[in-house]
Amino acid sequence: MPDTSRIKHTSLASKVMSSSQAAELIHDGMVVGASGFTRSGDSKAVLAALAEKAEYEHTRITLMTGASLGQGTDGALATAGAIAVRLPFQSDPVMRTIINEGGLSYIDENLSETAAHIRNGFLPPVDIAIIEAAYIEADGSIVPTTSVGNSAIFVQQARQVIVEINEAVPTGIRGIHDVYLPEDPTGRAILPITEVWQRIGQDVISCDPEKIVSIVFTNQKDSPAETAADNAAATAIARHLLHFFENEIAAGRLTRSLRPIQAGIGKIADAVLSGLAQGDFEHLTMYSEVLQDSTCRLIDSGKMDFASGSSMTLSEGCYRRVFADFEHYRHKILLRPQDITNAAEVIQRLGIIAINTALECDIYGNVNSSHIVGSHIVNGIGGSADFAQNSYLSIFVTESITKGGKISRIVPMVTHVDHSEHDVDVIVTEQGLADLRGLSPRQKAQAILSRCVHPDYQAELNSYFERACLRGGHTPHLLEEAFQLHTNLAGTGSMKTPIPESI
Amino acid sequence: MPDTSRIKHTSLASKVMSSSQAAELIHDGMVVGASGFTRSGDSKAVLAALAEKAEYEHTRITLMTGASLGQGTDGALATAGAIAVRLPFQSDPVMRTIINEGGLSYIDENLSETAAHIRNGFLPPVDIAIIEAAYIEADGSIVPTTSVGNSAIFVQQARQVIVEINEAVPTGIRGIHDVYLPEDPTGRAILPITEVWQRIGQDVISCDPEKIVSIVFTNQKDSPAETAADNAAATAIARHLLHFFENEIAAGRLTRSLRPIQAGIGKIADAVLSGLAQGDFEHLTMYSEVLQDSTCRLIDSGKMDFASGSSMTLSEGCYRRVFADFEHYRHKILLRPQDITNAAEVIQRLGIIAINTALECDIYGNVNSSHIVGSHIVNGIGGSADFAQNSYLSIFVTESITKGGKISRIVPMVTHVDHSEHDVDVIVTEQGLADLRGLSPRQKAQAILSRCVHPDYQAELNSYFERACLRGGHTPHLLEEAFQLHTNLAGTGSMKTPIPESI
Ligand SMILES: CC(C)(COP(=O)(O)OP(=O)(O)OC[C@H]1O[C@@H](n2cnc3c(N)ncnc32)[C@H](O)[C@@H]1OP(=O)(O)O)[C@@H](O)C(=O)NCCC(=O)NCCS
Ligand SMILES: CC(C)(COP(=O)(O)OP(=O)(O)OC[C@H]1O[C@@H](n2cnc3c(N)ncnc32)[C@H](O)[C@@H]1OP(=O)(O)O)[C@@H](O)C(=O)NCCC(=O)NCCS
Repeated sequence: MPDTSRIKHTSLASKVMSSSQAAELIHDGMVVGASGFTRSGDSKAVLAALAEKAEYEHTRITLMTGASLGQGTDGALATAGAIAVRLPFQSDPVMRTIINEGGLSYIDENLSETAAHIRNGFLPPVDIAIIEAAYIEADGSIVPTTSVGNSAIFVQQARQVIVEINEAVPTGIRGIHDVYLPEDPTGRAILPITEVWQRIGQDVISCDPEKIVSIVFTNQKDSPAETAADNAAATAIARHLLHFFENEIAAGRLTRSLRPIQAGIGKIADAVLSGLAQGDFEHLTMYSEVLQDSTCRLIDSGKMDFASGSSMTLSEGCYRRVFADFEHYRHKILLRPQDITNAAEVIQRLGIIAINTALECDIYGNVNSSHIVGSHIVNGIGGSADFAQNSYLSIFVTESITKGGKISRIVPMVTHVDHSEHDVDVIVTEQGLADLRGLSPRQKAQAILSRCVHPDYQAELNSYFERACLRGGHTPHLLEEAFQLHTNLAGTGSMKTPIPESI
Repeated sequence: MPDTSRIKHTSLASKVMSSSQAAELIHDGMVVGASGFTRSGDSKAVLAALAEKAEYEHTRITLMTGASLGQGTDGALATAGAIAVRLPFQSDPVMRTIINEGGLSYIDENLSETAAHIRNGFLPPVDIAIIEAAYIEADGSIVPTTSVGNSAIFVQQARQVIVEINEAVPTGIRGIHDVYLPEDPTGRAILPITEVWQRIGQDVISCDPEKIVSIVFTNQKDSPAETAADNAAATAIARHLLHFFENEIAAGRLTRSLRPIQAGIGKIADAVLSGLAQGDFEHLTMYSEVLQDSTCRLIDSGKMDFASGSSMTLSEGCYRRVFADFEHYRHKILLRPQDITNAAEVIQRLGIIAINTALECDIYGNVNSSHIVGSHIVNGIGGSADFAQNSYLSIFVTESITKGGKISRIVPMVTHVDHSEHDVDVIVTEQGLADLRGLSPRQKAQAILSRCVHPDYQAELNSYFERACLRGGHTPHLLEEAFQLHTNLAGTGSMKTPIPESI
């Protein structure tokens, strides 16, 4: 029996229906805005039912979310042919394959920008929103769950709203959200955040109850975050970075509180944050997208005072622990819309230290975070450029090699640029750290070549740079050879094939 | 006789000296911060004297400015070997050659960032500032001339200041500057500009008179802006863009006042702004870097209410006209520091329409604004990324070909990325306009290929895209062929050589 006490607006009780009934409200060609950010707070029932419906009835929609969905939902939808257009982010292996085959249009967007693009009319208007909720307030307002993402703008702009009340989420979650929508549709207001913990909005998503056309009950946890296995390379990267922070503190540029931290997800970010928990730091803060297990560990250790994000993406164990002792965390975390967590204005003002992951970097400090061999997308740019462009310090981390050494992640020229050298201050691999601040391109190349490259690729990359310098230029390249490592890989399965000399 | 009434702080009169005496204050290894932005308000005498001094006495400095200098100063300094490091921008043909030969280190920076990099200690501290002034106030404050650039941060941070009082600039210029320096050294203050005309600072650069070690008198106009000759391609580009604006107005996304405009310099921007002066627009505003002849024409025509920039770079005729009737312009223009004109926060808040020039664009909408064949720098990124990343609409303009058709400026893959597809909304060539908003990479390619490419390159580029799609990917590429046009050019002097089929 659904817990109807979670519908405080009594006349809405009549809107309760099954997920497949709700899916019937979604028609071919519609634009759907769904909650969900990094597999948290996403629709667990209605989108799944839509995938089932699309198997037998042609229904192809535009699906906008906060960021990635959990539960294999994106894969199921894409397989069923239910998606014509997907934005602004995904990380589903099945959907990724279909995107790369050209089977659906993926609009990979900076996560800060989707709300503005909707407001500006650069994207089609949202027909229907699907929002996971802890409960519905007496005035129809929606209490979100483990993410905020783009939910507020979807509810504001949609003609109709489907609410998924997830009974697995305690109603006590109310209060950790700070939902802010700019009043002026052109967005011309100052975003008055000057401290990570500052609240500028309200703790629910306002919603005209007339818009709520369906309420579906679920009782299902978020897809758990994968816990990172111990990894020597990640540990080495973290060690280099902590050493760098110590030097910055010694030079008087940072204090033991550092600056508010943004960290991408994954094993390397996890190792860095764990390193901070062990090191001599105090009063740390985060102003990030995703709050992870390591965030909770930092809070538990007493080293972190506050963490602001757009979602909580936790392992099963951590999830249980946080909700078992929620009062301990309640005043130390805040979930905001992603156009606020990722706002250039706030990132610059707070002076963020941004730590993101590169797929590959080139010798001049350009970074590819999204496309394998320049063509095949992995996930998308996500929020990495929002942070890299506007942070106080923009750090990119990556192992120097992958696939057992068959691939060097430092290359002469990246095959796709997500972050230009102007937005990359520091590159760290397990080999070492290159501090690129205040260097010219040739100096950057020297730093990266001497600090970050795997020994197996040292000679080849040095040779490229030296021969390119002979030809001249501010950023010397040999265009006919710039992708030789990549074409080797395509030909032989390894970048390592000897390269014929070109000069 | 120097007009000492321009030194209102009487005891400073003793600091008057010749430019060569002033140059003696600049020693080998020093970091010099000089005024000057797009050839306006730059040091005309002391840097020239430094170039002469460096001919016979080893003096190699780090030279920071606002942006480019006039008078051939950068070329003279570089030729004399006076420059070890140059930042954040230059556009001198002689200096460019020396940079590309590796003869000096050029740190090509986003123009918004230099002030923060100095404040953060990411760049070496400024030893001495050289600032062009209209006059010196009784308290030592400096009244700038035709640009603000980075002058205020240089004066604040330098140990010593050299003032060049330029008698060619009327003292009545005082009042058109709005000099704002964030109080908090970490920059954590809200920049409270919500309208282009808003003043947030003071109309002079504060300076401790004790710091002023030298005053040099000059009487020399800024290097005049080159007036753009009539150009059919530029006119066609302007026509496509005005047509686009009309459509945006019809769709309700823009009004007849558009949004505040930023425009790069050069013939195409000039043609676009002239088009606005003729079209049915009203209450236009600019929030740009450089105010040009076309800005004055728009003000004269009554179509433009206000223009904010960091410099005025005018032709000789326009310069004369503006200063002959200065009261007419005084309340319609404002010159600000470049970290304010180019601040992400303000650009986003005002919702700017940014119009910048591309050297080359690729079929997926990535833009190269700085490097010929990926290696040789032309000028630098300037403020183009500051605006492209944060604008409401980011437009790039370019002719579809150059060098009489030997070069296509639309290529399969750009050889250097200054602006990724995420920061490019519209591309315009004389062939047509591609509106890339809300499109996936393959859709962007279709739009660019069908609208922007020169007919001579149509077949080749279509073939590349079609064959790349067969290989698959979100952003399909054939890496072994991506730079074929460029290697053709290197081999034969033209991109047009037939390409052998690779599949
Ligand atoms: C860049 C990114 C994909 C790296 O994530 P990760 O989990 O560390 O990925 P890995 O390094 O394990 O690489 C993923 C796969 O690509 C392969 N790969 C990595 N680099 C490669 C390269 N240069 N060439 C070819 N393949 C490569 C890996 O071998 C791995 O393959 P597998 O799945 O078969 O093992 C991820 O951080 C991302 O999507 N970033 C963009 C968005 C973002 O930064 N968001 C967070 C902040 S807002
Ligand atoms: C991009 C930029 C160089 C274009 O300026 P422009 O005056 O229109 O330049 P042109 O198109 O005439 O090109 C300059 C030269 O490069 C050549 N060129 C242009 N595109 C080329 C290409 N794709 N490959 C090779 N050469 C090319 C031109 O033929 C020309 O050569 P020439 O001097 O021998 O005639 C200039 O706008 C710039 O420096 N932009 C970056 C900074 C910026 O945008 N600032 C303003 C806003 S903040």
